[in-house]
Amino acid sequence: MKPALGVCYYPEHWPEEVWAEDARRMAETGLTWVRIGEFAWSRLEAEPGKLTFDWLDRAIDVLGNAGLKVVLGTPTATPPRWMIDKHPDMLAVDAQGNPRRFGSRRHYDFSHAGYRAECVRIARLLGERYGRNPHVQAWQIDNEYACHETTVSFSRTAVEGFRNWLAQKYQSPEALNRAWGNIFWSMDYAEFAEIDAPNLTVTEPNPAHVMDWRRYHSDMVVAFNKAQADVLHRLTGAPLIHNYMGRILEFDHFDVGADLEIASWDSYPIGFLSDRVDETSEHKHRFLRQGDPDMQALHHDLYRAVGRGRWWVMEQQPGPVNWAPYNPAPMPGMARLWAWEAIAHGAEAVCYFRWRQAPFAQEQMHAGLLRPDSAPAPALAEAAKLAEELAAMGDITPVQARVAILFDYPSAWAWEIQPQGADFDYFALVFDFYRGLRRLGLSVDILPTDTPDLSAYKLVLAPGLFTMPAPLRERLAALEGIAIVGPRSNTRTEDFAIPVPLPPALPDLDATIALTESLPPSVAEPLAQGGHVIRWLERLEGHADVVVETTSGQPVLVRRGPLHYLAGWPDAEALSRILQTACKELGIATTLLPDGLRVRDTATRRFYINYSPEPVTHDGMTIAAADVTWKDLP
Amino acid sequence: MKPALGVCYYPEHWPEEVWAEDARRMAETGLTWVRIGEFAWSRLEAEPGKLTFDWLDRAIDVLGNAGLKVVLGTPTATPPRWMIDKHPDMLAVDAQGNPRRFGSRRHYDFSHAGYRAECVRIARLLGERYGRNPHVQAWQIDNEYACHETTVSFSRTAVEGFRNWLAQKYQSPEALNRAWGNIFWSMDYAEFAEIDAPNLTVTEPNPAHVMDWRRYHSDMVVAFNKAQADVLHRLTGAPLIHNYMGRILEFDHFDVGADLEIASWDSYPIGFLSDRVDETSEHKHRFLRQGDPDMQALHHDLYRAVGRGRWWVMEQQPGPVNWAPYNPAPMPGMARLWAWEAIAHGAEAVCYFRWRQAPFAQEQMHAGLLRPDSAPAPALAEAAKLAEELAAMGDITPVQARVAILFDYPSAWAWEIQPQGADFDYFALVFDFYRGLRRLGLSVDILPTDTPDLSAYKLVLAPGLFTMPAPLRERLAALEGIAIVGPRSNTRTEDFAIPVPLPPALPDLDATIALTESLPPSVAEPLAQGGHVIRWLERLEGHADVVVETTSGQPVLVRRGPLHYLAGWPDAEALSRILQTACKELGIATTLLPDGLRVRDTATRRFYINYSPEPVTHDGMTIAAADVTWKDLP
Amino acid sequence: MKPALGVCYYPEHWPEEVWAEDARRMAETGLTWVRIGEFAWSRLEAEPGKLTFDWLDRAIDVLGNAGLKVVLGTPTATPPRWMIDKHPDMLAVDAQGNPRRFGSRRHYDFSHAGYRAECVRIARLLGERYGRNPHVQAWQIDNEYACHETTVSFSRTAVEGFRNWLAQKYQSPEALNRAWGNIFWSMDYAEFAEIDAPNLTVTEPNPAHVMDWRRYHSDMVVAFNKAQADVLHRLTGAPLIHNYMGRILEFDHFDVGADLEIASWDSYPIGFLSDRVDETSEHKHRFLRQGDPDMQALHHDLYRAVGRGRWWVMEQQPGPVNWAPYNPAPMPGMARLWAWEAIAHGAEAVCYFRWRQAPFAQEQMHAGLLRPDSAPAPALAEAAKLAEELAAMGDITPVQARVAILFDYPSAWAWEIQPQGADFDYFALVFDFYRGLRRLGLSVDILPTDTPDLSAYKLVLAPGLFTMPAPLRERLAALEGIAIVGPRSNTRTEDFAIPVPLPPALPDLDATIALTESLPPSVAEPLAQGGHVIRWLERLEGHADVVVETTSGQPVLVRRGPLHYLAGWPDAEALSRILQTACKELGIATTLLPDGLRVRDTATRRFYINYSPEPVTHDGMTIAAADVTWKDLP
Ligand SMILES: [Zn+2]
Ligand SMILES: [Zn+2]
Ligand SMILES: [Zn+2]
Repeated sequence: MKPALGVCYYPEHWPEEVWAEDARRMAETGLTWVRIGEFAWSRLEAEPGKLTFDWLDRAIDVLGNAGLKVVLGTPTATPPRWMIDKHPDMLAVDAQGNPRRFGSRRHYDFSHAGYRAECVRIARLLGERYGRNPHVQAWQIDNEYACHETTVSFSRTAVEGFRNWLAQKYQSPEALNRAWGNIFWSMDYAEFAEIDAPNLTVTEPNPAHVMDWRRYHSDMVVAFNKAQADVLHRLTGAPLIHNYMGRILEFDHFDVGADLEIASWDSYPIGFLSDRVDETSEHKHRFLRQGDPDMQALHHDLYRAVGRGRWWVMEQQPGPVNWAPYNPAPMPGMARLWAWEAIAHGAEAVCYFRWRQAPFAQEQMHAGLLRPDSAPAPALAEAAKLAEELAAMGDITPVQARVAILFDYPSAWAWEIQPQGADFDYFALVFDFYRGLRRLGLSVDILPTDTPDLSAYKLVLAPGLFTMPAPLRERLAALEGIAIVGPRSNTRTEDFAIPVPLPPALPDLDATIALTESLPPSVAEPLAQGGHVIRWLERLEGHADVVVETTSGQPVLVRRGPLHYLAGWPDAEALSRILQTACKELGIATTLLPDGLRVRDTATRRFYINYSPEPVTHDGMTIAAADVTWKDLP
Repeated sequence: MKPALGVCYYPEHWPEEVWAEDARRMAETGLTWVRIGEFAWSRLEAEPGKLTFDWLDRAIDVLGNAGLKVVLGTPTATPPRWMIDKHPDMLAVDAQGNPRRFGSRRHYDFSHAGYRAECVRIARLLGERYGRNPHVQAWQIDNEYACHETTVSFSRTAVEGFRNWLAQKYQSPEALNRAWGNIFWSMDYAEFAEIDAPNLTVTEPNPAHVMDWRRYHSDMVVAFNKAQADVLHRLTGAPLIHNYMGRILEFDHFDVGADLEIASWDSYPIGFLSDRVDETSEHKHRFLRQGDPDMQALHHDLYRAVGRGRWWVMEQQPGPVNWAPYNPAPMPGMARLWAWEAIAHGAEAVCYFRWRQAPFAQEQMHAGLLRPDSAPAPALAEAAKLAEELAAMGDITPVQARVAILFDYPSAWAWEIQPQGADFDYFALVFDFYRGLRRLGLSVDILPTDTPDLSAYKLVLAPGLFTMPAPLRERLAALEGIAIVGPRSNTRTEDFAIPVPLPPALPDLDATIALTESLPPSVAEPLAQGGHVIRWLERLEGHADVVVETTSGQPVLVRRGPLHYLAGWPDAEALSRILQTACKELGIATTLLPDGLRVRDTATRRFYINYSPEPVTHDGMTIAAADVTWKDLP
Repeated sequence: MKPALGVCYYPEHWPEEVWAEDARRMAETGLTWVRIGEFAWSRLEAEPGKLTFDWLDRAIDVLGNAGLKVVLGTPTATPPRWMIDKHPDMLAVDAQGNPRRFGSRRHYDFSHAGYRAECVRIARLLGERYGRNPHVQAWQIDNEYACHETTVSFSRTAVEGFRNWLAQKYQSPEALNRAWGNIFWSMDYAEFAEIDAPNLTVTEPNPAHVMDWRRYHSDMVVAFNKAQADVLHRLTGAPLIHNYMGRILEFDHFDVGADLEIASWDSYPIGFLSDRVDETSEHKHRFLRQGDPDMQALHHDLYRAVGRGRWWVMEQQPGPVNWAPYNPAPMPGMARLWAWEAIAHGAEAVCYFRWRQAPFAQEQMHAGLLRPDSAPAPALAEAAKLAEELAAMGDITPVQARVAILFDYPSAWAWEIQPQGADFDYFALVFDFYRGLRRLGLSVDILPTDTPDLSAYKLVLAPGLFTMPAPLRERLAALEGIAIVGPRSNTRTEDFAIPVPLPPALPDLDATIALTESLPPSVAEPLAQGGHVIRWLERLEGHADVVVETTSGQPVLVRRGPLHYLAGWPDAEALSRILQTACKELGIATTLLPDGLRVRDTATRRFYINYSPEPVTHDGMTIAAADVTWKDLP
């Protein structure tokens, strides 16, 4: 595979006179992809039914004639103002009952059939006009599903959809009452029509109710996306893509991804460090202008799985952004480093967002490759340098890792619904495990829980998996390598009930969770083998072999042969020890990397990526701050 | 009195086949009481008017035949879904104007006459069927009034009730305007119908308005409870009980308690430490798995007063709960300790909540005496041990303390309405005084302010009493022992105005509050006699004798003979000194207990209760962590 | 000018019998002004159209006959309850869509034409009756515009007014779409009637939309005020005044002030220190009972500009207030010190709020000059002492400062709309500059940005000016003294877009902001010349002379002759150095004052004001804590 670079461009924002010069400079920089159109509905259809494609025809022509390949977006994340008059109830409703109004973006309800039909209509019109256009070589559907907390809506429309979804699932109110345990507080329903959204209840609603509510909304995102994918698949052979976001878990990305050819995501390392990485302020200070060393990589590996191997970075941060609490500039070199890291993880393309900084509207403080006055911003030269390096390198072939983490969106919803400890969070747990592996120099695959064959992996981690279907438990128990399951894995049935016999109920592993503690930040239970358990500690009963225990003798990690159950949340030290021990047993070489350095292997090379603000020495090389280098693998 | 143990049980949650075995195991454990039915309305009346009592008949039979006495609950805290269709306006409304919806519990408005009639109806039906059933030896009305902030409702129904209540109270709008001082910002009303709830005003509403609003809602709780109590009193001779909560002060518990035979409360020491005790994180860390050493005792003593001597713990935490920010497990021994402490304070019964952990719905992470798989949870053995100890001990006779604190619910509302300092809180003030007495080894009685005769007490504390009617002031002034009044006591009239002559206006005590300061946490005014004043400091004028003063000579504690006025909030050191000095003068022996140890006297024994996580040595004994022991009194 | 003292009085709160005695005591104290009437609408018009002036006639008579001059307030901040029935949609609406209800004050929508007409009516009635009354020598219109966040309303009325305002401004939707950059996310409007308030959008609304929304509301305050001013100007020759608040910037005070003769403000130093000064807790602890040493002075200088030289303190804190998080008492002497400081800054009058503490309603914990029992509160003697000192001193003549700061309300709105860094705040920036000058012993003038002639000033600071019209840039470039512009000055066009060529685009200054960083509190970029840049750092390009740079060589302060651009937010050390250097170059003597001491010059005297809690020695004098003294200037 030959990775490519690209950029996001908004011809509708600029005078037509500058398009050609812009296209020329893009090509000159070494960019080959240009994404356009995803917010342009008002320019395509200023009044209902009055379509205006000529400017887009010309824009595609100008870009294509400069040698660029176009990713064309369906503009359904930004319905024009007239759409609200046509479908007044298309707006999503917040948990307080207020419609979320026109005036920014993503102002629609995934459940609204009328709006979904409008989206299929505009997608069809675009597909009919550009589906066979030779310059249009990929499509993007909508933009950043779920961003700005737009998955769940408390609208009448959503509630009606939910009732139908429940009727399909449970067939009778009695079945639903049993499944949810509605007898608990006389919450039984006599008809599906009595069921409401689980908001504004006096105290917490039934978690089973909320879980189905969350599943329903995830399904609506899938259906919304599929409706557009279906019509475009009939009209074009080009691949379909969606651009997901970072640490947004409100819908099942694997389900959406199943209807698309390529997954992509929008990578804003500095913004994310500030607003969605759980870390100490020291860590955030150290990586202020670089971003967290594992946050991007985790998403690269996750979206590689969502795309079944095919994935892009659709938006790559090039400079300061506008939306984080604080917005420092990237250290020189980072715009290149981030893209190299994506490529090392197998990205087919990395597109910078955006070509020229917009001097107006919401994102005027968001840097581009060009400044508003069209002078080069710092990232432009870094992109050009990277393009040259890529041209020189030739093919890059991904390789399967030996270590995998199972990832499951419904588990994220479940732990959000029932954290039990105020800081118990599924993503944070997975992130700790991912970082633990990376700090040991390992390349990691992230896999959906229904991956049919895990036999190629030596070490498989299954932290926090809400519900583990029997086949999954069997697959893990049958692994030749080591499986580490837990904490809190398989602790609920599909109906959000505690299974009896009690969890984790792993095949032939004699271990039962007798009691669970969530622990405040001030508590860390010391382990006899070093490190501590924090946040979460399950009291195990049974006769499984004890691998790790507290200093008071309470089992924390138990095993039956290769199958392990981990009964608590290990701190970094304990986790590192557990992972190193497992790797040693498996004959996987590990090395504790210098702080901020990460490595990633492709089929033929090892890439060294230095996120730290100073040079690091490793493997006989000194790698400058914010630099990337590589060695051929033997 | 022979204290008894019990448990809360939900036959409707389990297959009928297991009831008998459950009952057998309860009896075997030494439990004698079993509370049932309080959330079962949907099982009793699945459709309006279609009553189904047979399952409850059988459940009571099974339990009774095993030798258990039943506490039967009226299920009015959980109206079924059909009730909302029948009375769509029965839902309480939050301060933002949103109805608080169906889907959990306590979804009703205390002001709603239609719902109140439904409650009387179901209570009557239950009373008619079970009022003379020999197994049903006590009744619980509703469940945890006020829990989840359900006292106050901003509904149309409540506003209309409020207007009528005001019309009754004031007779004319002119009288109301005068009482509230509505002239202040042209807030006068021409008719009662113009008066609204005091929410959503531009800036703070008139505190007199809010105070009446709070009084009205307290009265509605009293009326709601009385309606059921009245019908049940006609149908049964068994005692009526309500189960109050911890640190919930939104209605006047003395008023509700006046219509019931027995008070009870739901004691969750570890959850309360986490979510409603104001303490340092060091303290919370130290008592993480034990609960605060004074929080339970204060409520025991308070509810003993509410029950006019007769009181229970209706729900006793047995293991981790589900609802606090963090939910650690009790230290081994605490399930026994907590119950022993209640008994030492005079509880007639202590019932654990609940028999078996429910694997479904909202409280699935709430431990029981049994695990979801019916295996014993740790608390079961502790309950059995306690049952044996109780059997061995025989009668326990309460005794009146020599020290009392006056407690007043309207004062709590008043200081919430007008804190003046951001952390001024009535409960916190009383708690400091209570803890100060307990740390000196004293047993304490808590009394309502209308206690007609205080003469049996040597030391009476009256902190923070909003309004002190003249007879109360006279009673305190006439005390032979010592009365300590203040801070902020008697500083408002019944109409929430500053009285003139200025407060505290105590009989013959020449002391006037000339000025009041509230102080931020960074300020502590040192006292010449040791310790500091924090949070609150009144500048006194007058010629009363000065007992304690600041290092700059400002009087803080003044007296005329036995009558003291305290003009500030003392820190622990200052308070301890003040209390010790008073006790010394009164000939009451005090001893500063080791940290975490508490003592409580009955007529014949002194109980030693060790909340600390390590053994303590005191009175020549070493008491293990989480242990209770006792000595006969001479 | 001979400054005077006064007091705020509410005859309607007290029995008529005490008015004469109150008036006598006021005069005896040396007060000459008494403000009355501003909340008395319900007493003037208890029912629609039923006017009752006789009590007010008598009150004015009693006060006037005692020798007092009356400031008569229009009572439009507190419409009576019947007004809401007459104009049900007159209530402002909060951002969540809830009407802000009756029951306190300021319950009206500035956009509401019907209510505005009612206000004109009552103002006319008052003007007709008292406009020529010899005792009424000044008028106050309404009370504390914007207090309690009452400028902006999200009502239907406001939205309709906004649409008309936009239509006037832009003339066509196309022009508005272009100005706002609505193409950005397909936010174009086809008609003005489609435009809504910018609340409840899914993510942030267009900043240009919000900016116009804020401008519209400011204009509504101006129009509201002008309507009353116009009618009163026809009926009286006495000066018209409004009493502004501290650190409330929601409307353009210069615009409102243009229609009035005198500006005034309500000065609550201790309350403001607690609730609206951004400072460390050490600083707040040190000045707990004095208030911040610069907060009052800044407002004095600002409102002197708003009043075009004529200004008062209409409400002066006399003791503890009721509305701050904590409410300590002023240190003895502060009630005198604060008033003296105002007078040194040119106040014509200082009125204490209020005469007697009200024992009822919302402000019962707000001290007065008298206690509720009519005994003197501590401030009464301080006021009397000050009156004597003033009488002894004779005329006080203000003098123009040599140093000025340009102040701009729309810039405050702009930075609030787009802070870019979470703690970037316009007022805080200006306050840092103001404090920096004051710590050097300088007297400062604050000026509106349209001040036609700046030539009398040697040093002019223009921090954070959102938009700088070309004439302003020219005036600053032409200054003979030094102008320091920035940070973030002139970075937006009037349409809230980044101008091209890029900012700051100052005449002949070769400096361009290539990139902007906002920095979290943990980051401070060290400067080669000492001190640091915090919060905000712009990367400059160009060949202007570098005056200050980071230790890594990035320019921070650049100049072309006297015109400087400052590309970051300097900390106190860096700012002091920059200001000292500039003053040295200009020949302005500076001296770093002892902590808490401030000086202020009039034409003939230098006043020394000691805010610190201990005596300070300076200029050969020792000034006691909370004391004021003065020296004749040579
Ligand atoms: Zn984005
Ligand atoms: Zn409860
Ligand atoms: Zn005020």
